[in-house]
Amino acid sequence: MTAQVNKILVMGLGLIGGSLARSLKQSGFCKHVSGWGYRDVSLKKGIAQGVIDSYSLDMEEALAGADIVVIGTPTLTANTVMKEILPLVGADTVITDVASVKGSLVEASAGAANFVPAHPIAGSEQSGVDASRADLFVDHRVILTPTDNTDATALELVRAMWASTGADVVEMGVVEHDAILAATSHLPHVLAYTLVDALAHSELSADIFRFAAGGFRDFTRIASSDPVMWRDIALANRDELLKAIDNFSVHLGSLREAVANADGAALEATFTGAKAARDAFTADKKEQQEAD
Amino acid sequence: MTAQVNKILVMGLGLIGGSLARSLKQSGFCKHVSGWGYRDVSLKKGIAQGVIDSYSLDMEEALAGADIVVIGTPTLTANTVMKEILPLVGADTVITDVASVKGSLVEASAGAANFVPAHPIAGSEQSGVDASRADLFVDHRVILTPTDNTDATALELVRAMWASTGADVVEMGVVEHDAILAATSHLPHVLAYTLVDALAHSELSADIFRFAAGGFRDFTRIASSDPVMWRDIALANRDELLKAIDNFSVHLGSLREAVANADGAALEATFTGAKAARDAFTADKKEQQEAD
Repeated sequence: MTAQVNKILVMGLGLIGGSLARSLKQSGFCKHVSGWGYRDVSLKKGIAQGVIDSYSLDMEEALAGADIVVIGTPTLTANTVMKEILPLVGADTVITDVASVKGSLVEASAGAANFVPAHPIAGSEQSGVDASRADLFVDHRVILTPTDNTDATALELVRAMWASTGADVVEMGVVEHDAILAATSHLPHVLAYTLVDALAHSELSADIFRFAAGGFRDFTRIASSDPVMWRDIALANRDELLKAIDNFSVHLGSLREAVANADGAALEATFTGAKAARDAFTADKKEQQEAD
Repeated sequence: MTAQVNKILVMGLGLIGGSLARSLKQSGFCKHVSGWGYRDVSLKKGIAQGVIDSYSLDMEEALAGADIVVIGTPTLTANTVMKEILPLVGADTVITDVASVKGSLVEASAGAANFVPAHPIAGSEQSGVDASRADLFVDHRVILTPTDNTDATALELVRAMWASTGADVVEMGVVEHDAILAATSHLPHVLAYTLVDALAHSELSADIFRFAAGGFRDFTRIASSDPVMWRDIALANRDELLKAIDNFSVHLGSLREAVANADGAALEATFTGAKAARDAFTADKKEQQEAD
């Protein structure tokens, strides 16, 4: 690939930022990948492992000459970084991000036309630059949520950047994104954390987990996620998460009534419908993988 | 192993019954493993695959001469089979089972001293005799829930039978078993079914599942379980499941309040506690596996 871009700055070199940097260097999408962070631990590793070409702890120095700035920090920190960099970059520097919640960051961007909100739906149980991989985004979805203010050229550049990683780039509205992610990701994390918390406080047995089987282990895997990151996501996406919790509670209430009334037909109908939807979802994913 | 038992009858040759039959034949715990079912499809496969030595569709014929009768059918069917066989067997024939709920089956047994309630905590996403394996129970827990009526000799025989499969055999009360399984297994299934059902009925997007990631896939795997089996478990363990749902709802309500109040400290405390409990649980399981 002929380099389309001179310099890309990745701010926050974790799993996502590091994987993007690796991919951009590997594909040659840009000539130079630089890093910035509040501390230098990850950045030194990034240099040693060839993830980035250079770094600076000085924000102004790091931003100098960057064509694209990728805010790679977690959700709430991204809001802070956004406010710090806006006065420091020109209108021709494209800003994008990787955060799981878009509404709060769009708000922090105060309508900047050069900001293209983005959310790669990729991750791993591991974290940090050591776990980063150039192929992390291949065939994963990246959701762009441009606003009415977003500059069309900036949007196309960010789209091209993510396409170069092998991702499937789609667009949707900010509110739709935050509602869908609340339902499919943020709510499940809350439910898994809540279940484990409820059991840990149970009077049933000091060692209730001894009798948990494989299904429980899978169901609660996401309760082993980083508590601070998920605290921040819950706070950043508060309104949509509350709606998702309330919608879930209504459905759980209906199911509770079916159990209380020994309404086998209602239980079977709900379970059968859910199984069909879930099997269709995994079949789609499988087809997608097989088509790779 | 010198055979301790002459004939064991497995009633219902699915994954669990088939795996037990295979293990008993392999270890030589008994001389003869026989099968019974309402239909002969699985039983013919059982003969062809060497899972059982003989079978009969006639209940009385099948029961003749059996030292141990294992009711291998799912929860509600097990209650029916129990009522059918009780008048047909003598007090020296030991009856046991593999059902996920113990209270309703103990009730169906009407205080029979020769009944030893048992629940092997093992399974697979697959089902049926084709998926059965002699080593399915190795290092898995089998919970025996003897009642005040249970004959001590019958209890020891069933304990020896499960120990011969390589299982870790433990004992607890019927009510404790049903409460613990409601919390660690039946409730998670209800939550997973409810979440997928809620999303499938969502107005957000016709293809909301397109944007679900790996965490969602693991979280909802148990929503692909057999709807009829789980309908029956929910009905059989109604009282304990209702308590588990209500306890969960209280905890979810607290977490909802923390989100609504943007109480980051409360969220972080809950998430951190849950992660610690979940990580300890998986570390225990890992140690257990590594000790094998």
